[in-house]
Amino acid sequence: MGKIVVDIAMSLDGFISGINVSPQLPMGDQGLRLHDWIFDKKTAIDVNMINEVMETSGAVIVGRHTYDVAIDEAWEGRSPFPMPALVISHYKAQRIVDGFTFVTDGIEEALKQAKTIAGNKNIWIMGGANIIRQFIKAGLVDELEIHLAHILLGKGTRLFDDELTNVVELERIRSIESAAVTHVRFRILK
Amino acid sequence: MGKIVVDIAMSLDGFISGINVSPQLPMGDQGLRLHDWIFDKKTAIDVNMINEVMETSGAVIVGRHTYDVAIDEAWEGRSPFPMPALVISHYKAQRIVDGFTFVTDGIEEALKQAKTIAGNKNIWIMGGANIIRQFIKAGLVDELEIHLAHILLGKGTRLFDDELTNVVELERIRSIESAAVTHVRFRILK
Repeated sequence: MGKIVVDIAMSLDGFISGINVSPQLPMGDQGLRLHDWIFDKKTAIDVNMINEVMETSGAVIVGRHTYDVAIDEAWEGRSPFPMPALVISHYKAQRIVDGFTFVTDGIEEALKQAKTIAGNKNIWIMGGANIIRQFIKAGLVDELEIHLAHILLGKGTRLFDDELTNVVELERIRSIESAAVTHVRFRILK
Repeated sequence: MGKIVVDIAMSLDGFISGINVSPQLPMGDQGLRLHDWIFDKKTAIDVNMINEVMETSGAVIVGRHTYDVAIDEAWEGRSPFPMPALVISHYKAQRIVDGFTFVTDGIEEALKQAKTIAGNKNIWIMGGANIIRQFIKAGLVDELEIHLAHILLGKGTRLFDDELTNVVELERIRSIESAAVTHVRFRILK
């Protein structure tokens, strides 16, 4: 069976988007700086990292807020993902982009559906922060791929909050140095 | 002239100590886990890292809170540092440990005195978080050495807050992999 993998870009000061996130500005103020490695400062290493998550993931899970601000309008009705996507939401959206399925029964049900879809491939927990934290707190994540962006963003949405009740042990699987980012992958020890 | 270097251990979720910091528990609840690489999980690489900061620093700067909880009682009246230490404080302490000098005129005055003491060696900004952030916000830091501990600590004192007004650009100088920690060093671009 595949692994359940969080794969996300985070600034050294812990942010995964800037403030003022909206459909017009899905990454928030200055938030695109977290993706310099995908755009302006892209290297062959970074392209490989993106290809890897796209090729190894058989399903992707996103939260409703991420769907609303980063998918629906931003991609003009098309899915940015080459694999099926599940949206965790309390209610179904009026308009659902092709390639997306809404799950209204919480993270465990979403994971169950994702496993069926993904088969032997990984399940990518894309975000947002709240969904990622829910999966971590539930002990459901196998690996964390953090694209550590070489900036202090200063403000925005934090990946991690102050609400874990126990220390989570990590083992670094690899660390790959690129120009604008250090790609660090951890296994979560259980 | 030497560089002004922040050198500190931080969990992947951004904490440099646990909650409930006190003279009896200077790193707070579970906070010693940030220093596994110095103690239980120490390797030759980690020893070199510690030796490096000790040997290259000609002066160290700490905040008053750090002095009170981590120095005064914890080290029984002796300094843990092989180099002169400056304490940034609003008022002088009643008891001042040998090797420490109190500076009551703020970070720039402390830096001025540290430069005189350090000569060609570096100045180590040890912490706490508040002092480090003051130096970063004032544009006074040359390099950040982050000992990225392979844990999610879950709660405690964050190194970075939400109050930077501009994105701070970093350049990774090196990344050194050890067992319990990844030592990542950044230059702050100005």
